[in-house]
Amino acid sequence: MPSPMPLAAARAGVPERGELPKYFQVKQKIDAVLDELRPGAPLPTERQFADRFGVSRMTVRQAIRELRLEGRVQRSGRSSVAGQPKLVQPLTLASYTEGVRRQGLRPGRQLVVFERLAAPPALAAGLRIEPGAPVFHLERLLLADEERVGLESTYLSADRFPALTDEFDPSTSLYGHLRRSGVVFADADERIETVLASPREVQLIGTSPALPMLLLNRVTRDAQGCPVECVRSLYRGDRFSFTARLTPEPD
Amino acid sequence: MPSPMPLAAARAGVPERGELPKYFQVKQKIDAVLDELRPGAPLPTERQFADRFGVSRMTVRQAIRELRLEGRVQRSGRSSVAGQPKLVQPLTLASYTEGVRRQGLRPGRQLVVFERLAAPPALAAGLRIEPGAPVFHLERLLLADEERVGLESTYLSADRFPALTDEFDPSTSLYGHLRRSGVVFADADERIETVLASPREVQLIGTSPALPMLLLNRVTRDAQGCPVECVRSLYRGDRFSFTARLTPEPD
Repeated sequence: MPSPMPLAAARAGVPERGELPKYFQVKQKIDAVLDELRPGAPLPTERQFADRFGVSRMTVRQAIRELRLEGRVQRSGRSSVAGQPKLVQPLTLASYTEGVRRQGLRPGRQLVVFERLAAPPALAAGLRIEPGAPVFHLERLLLADEERVGLESTYLSADRFPALTDEFDPSTSLYGHLRRSGVVFADADERIETVLASPREVQLIGTSPALPMLLLNRVTRDAQGCPVECVRSLYRGDRFSFTARLTPEPD
Repeated sequence: MPSPMPLAAARAGVPERGELPKYFQVKQKIDAVLDELRPGAPLPTERQFADRFGVSRMTVRQAIRELRLEGRVQRSGRSSVAGQPKLVQPLTLASYTEGVRRQGLRPGRQLVVFERLAAPPALAAGLRIEPGAPVFHLERLLLADEERVGLESTYLSADRFPALTDEFDPSTSLYGHLRRSGVVFADADERIETVLASPREVQLIGTSPALPMLLLNRVTRDAQGCPVECVRSLYRGDRFSFTARLTPEPD
């Protein structure tokens, strides 16, 4: 799926009235420096930028902080390097694994939690089961080339898949396992929005608390229209974008 | 299109090791207070929360700041009120106007810029025209019930639509105008990510600079597969979510 390249903000983001904040002027200058650097190349230090642009180190820090939140700059140990381009993940029924592999990266998943619990009301409604009915919760870190890029919680009815904990190896593909068990994935509804990570999520993914995340909530249905899973996935906003192919709605 | 309800973070976001930050504990308590309030209902003051929870006003302020970035709390003059639920906009070829109207709100657009300019390289590639070729840039504020919720820049080839400035009234629907001119919208590719608003965008939309925004870049094609428009839309991350219906990819 081709992905539209993001266009620059109109008028380079400069307001028609009022002053352009100094940190934003510096941000634009550093942005131009980044255009000349390969991903992973080290940035000049805060002190060097401050000297070059004749501003305080605080101003440079604020500019680099915004560039980091947007993925233009990444931390590497204690220094800053030019960021990798954002991953472009298609919004399709294909799994995370397939999407990342298509971009030439090594996908991985790391088990955090595999537990049985009683469905709270919102989850029960999503899975169309009784509130309090047993569900399996499978929580895994999403990796791309060993980097932690997201966190995914999948919920399935334990009455429908009673042998899941015995038969499924959480280091493998859940979709592969369910397909082998005879489940046909027919369609899904996905909701995408931006949120801030919770302290637990910050700790697991290893991001800064202020980093905007992309939250995806999905309900996947089988050929009978019955919900198979509810999934809550959180992706680093500085590392991910999503694409969709839009077609006319059926009349 | 039904939209999956967002599920709560696993373990209520509380980390397995280390302390839960005090502001996050307060945020969870205020979140529970918000569950009992109708959208638009006034919140207790910072001082009242500080007294009730035995914490400093600074801690309350940090908690409310995060709740505001997430749309759970909204400003109303100088006080805080419970937020409206996020708008749920389908990712379809339907226009912004149609999407907002389906949710029972009054859509509106307010002209900011209608200009002719030379296409920069990225835009020219998107529209499949020569770099430097003339394009029309139509920039409009997106309104929902008079509230400014986004900013949209549409770019079209001026060679293909030479009479656009004469024939099109920017307060009306561009898609309606183009359809009447014989354009058939066949499909589009859309890319969605989270970014920070620029100072100009902050001023036009009237948001706080730290507010995460949802950036959508779209290329819409006609029945011949030729790009009709490139669109860059910025939506308030605290007010919008997007949904997509996913189906299996054709083999």
